[in-house]
Amino acid sequence: MNSTYYAACGLEIPHVANDNLEAMIDLQNFFIEVNAKLDETLDNLVPTMETEPATLYSAMRWSLFAGGKRIRPALLVACGRAFGASEFTLYPVAAAVEMMHTYSLIHDDLPAMDDDDLRRGRETCHKKFGEAAAILAGDALQALAFETVANVQELSPVLRVRLISNLGEAAAKMVAGQELDLEAEGRATEVGDLEKIHRNKTGALLAMSARAGALIGGADGDDLSAVSGFGEQLGLLFQITDDLLDITQSTESLGKTAGKDVSARKATYPNAYGIKMASELARDAHASASEYLECIRPRSALLTAINDFVLHRLS
Amino acid sequence: MNSTYYAACGLEIPHVANDNLEAMIDLQNFFIEVNAKLDETLDNLVPTMETEPATLYSAMRWSLFAGGKRIRPALLVACGRAFGASEFTLYPVAAAVEMMHTYSLIHDDLPAMDDDDLRRGRETCHKKFGEAAAILAGDALQALAFETVANVQELSPVLRVRLISNLGEAAAKMVAGQELDLEAEGRATEVGDLEKIHRNKTGALLAMSARAGALIGGADGDDLSAVSGFGEQLGLLFQITDDLLDITQSTESLGKTAGKDVSARKATYPNAYGIKMASELARDAHASASEYLECIRPRSALLTAINDFVLHRLS
Repeated sequence: MNSTYYAACGLEIPHVANDNLEAMIDLQNFFIEVNAKLDETLDNLVPTMETEPATLYSAMRWSLFAGGKRIRPALLVACGRAFGASEFTLYPVAAAVEMMHTYSLIHDDLPAMDDDDLRRGRETCHKKFGEAAAILAGDALQALAFETVANVQELSPVLRVRLISNLGEAAAKMVAGQELDLEAEGRATEVGDLEKIHRNKTGALLAMSARAGALIGGADGDDLSAVSGFGEQLGLLFQITDDLLDITQSTESLGKTAGKDVSARKATYPNAYGIKMASELARDAHASASEYLECIRPRSALLTAINDFVLHRLS
Repeated sequence: MNSTYYAACGLEIPHVANDNLEAMIDLQNFFIEVNAKLDETLDNLVPTMETEPATLYSAMRWSLFAGGKRIRPALLVACGRAFGASEFTLYPVAAAVEMMHTYSLIHDDLPAMDDDDLRRGRETCHKKFGEAAAILAGDALQALAFETVANVQELSPVLRVRLISNLGEAAAKMVAGQELDLEAEGRATEVGDLEKIHRNKTGALLAMSARAGALIGGADGDDLSAVSGFGEQLGLLFQITDDLLDITQSTESLGKTAGKDVSARKATYPNAYGIKMASELARDAHASASEYLECIRPRSALLTAINDFVLHRLS
């Protein structure tokens, strides 16, 4: 696969991180591997486009298989791998997390919400299939996410209900965060509000992904706390860099409409703090995430590379 | 409580069923009891309107506490009671089913779907809180439904994952049924299509409710099959009577816009078969449901009353 492919998936190695080129190449290969296995898992879980009603399953697949970084599944698999979990127990749960994330993007893009036409480099779900089908595709993806975790026979029922409970909690926070975000639009954002929005909207599912992987790997006590702390800081880092990329990158490289946060006066870190201070906050979150990873050395090599990648990512 | 209260909740005793007045009064008392306990359970599960974001939780509560027959929770509790389940294990699951049903009503009423202004005798969620909040309230209710079942500590994890899997399957079918229903709108409906729509859209969650109650009560083998069969037939009966009521009753008595199915050329039993034949089909479904109940005598008294009530209901 060539550099265009990497760029399209948001997997391009940032030059600034080239001081650790070997780790970055390992990470790139890891992302490629996760993407391929995740696609296979999702393909087995979601009814084919030949199933009736074809519009519904086509709409679900349109948004699921649009590429994207798959940072949540990658994080889940990496945390699971760090604690020795079997890959075949990780991928169904990783697929469930990606379904949950994808449903939230479909609904957030709707005209009544952020009203966006472009996502992951292609038309948004409602532009392609109409609003009704997009609402229903999101609804069906959420249902399938929970059903998928309930059906992972290789995991104990005790663990499955714990994962479902965590997934439900993260999903509820994600929705609350989106509502807070919509309410904040167009007015000056208090710093406390900004944190509350993003801890819910983006942070909760990212942190849950890290934690789920560790739980499947059997982590507990201090190890589990460290992974949870890492996940939360990585979620914060991811959101700040996302906000910065909206300003510094083109629509083409992002695969979604760039510059929209500023024009809509969205509650973002650069809007609230300015670009320089927001970059500072990103480095702080990265440093804090690194500290958590110190607690689980030497398991943390891949997670360290993910942390570096999110700090320096180009899209 | 007076007859106006009963009528508002759709609990009025139909005169035609007065030949078994005692059973109908028992049933009415049962519905009242379920409504009160369900309200209490839901009130404990859904964040208060003082919680931020207040709009989200107000919108969820607006639709959850709008009255309604609560036929699914009642069915779940009745089937659980038939097999000796403890009430405190039934109500959280009954609440989850009601959340799932309510979310589907909120989304189905949206402008992009059935575009309705009135539900359960009051403004629809999006009319009251706006489209964005209504979409999010539905999303949050679905997430909370699954989380609620995952957290019923009094049920074994094995049973919880089974219930979640069944709930997920029913939720996915409900969405597929709504998509099929939208696609069928405005064109002549084949009889096979009609059955497929309603088996998915209404039947799946009603049948799941009956089955879930029996499962919590420890039913298995032939008993569980009989309850499942009963639930499916009752779901069919419920849909046919719903379609008939749309034609024969007023908007005021239904609490939702009457006569809409005909004007929108919806896929309904009266539209496809005519009123007389549709009434015949309702009696067939009632008879078939009764046969299943024969298999679990003498546990079935309350369920028989529910079956009779659904056949003769006035709203």
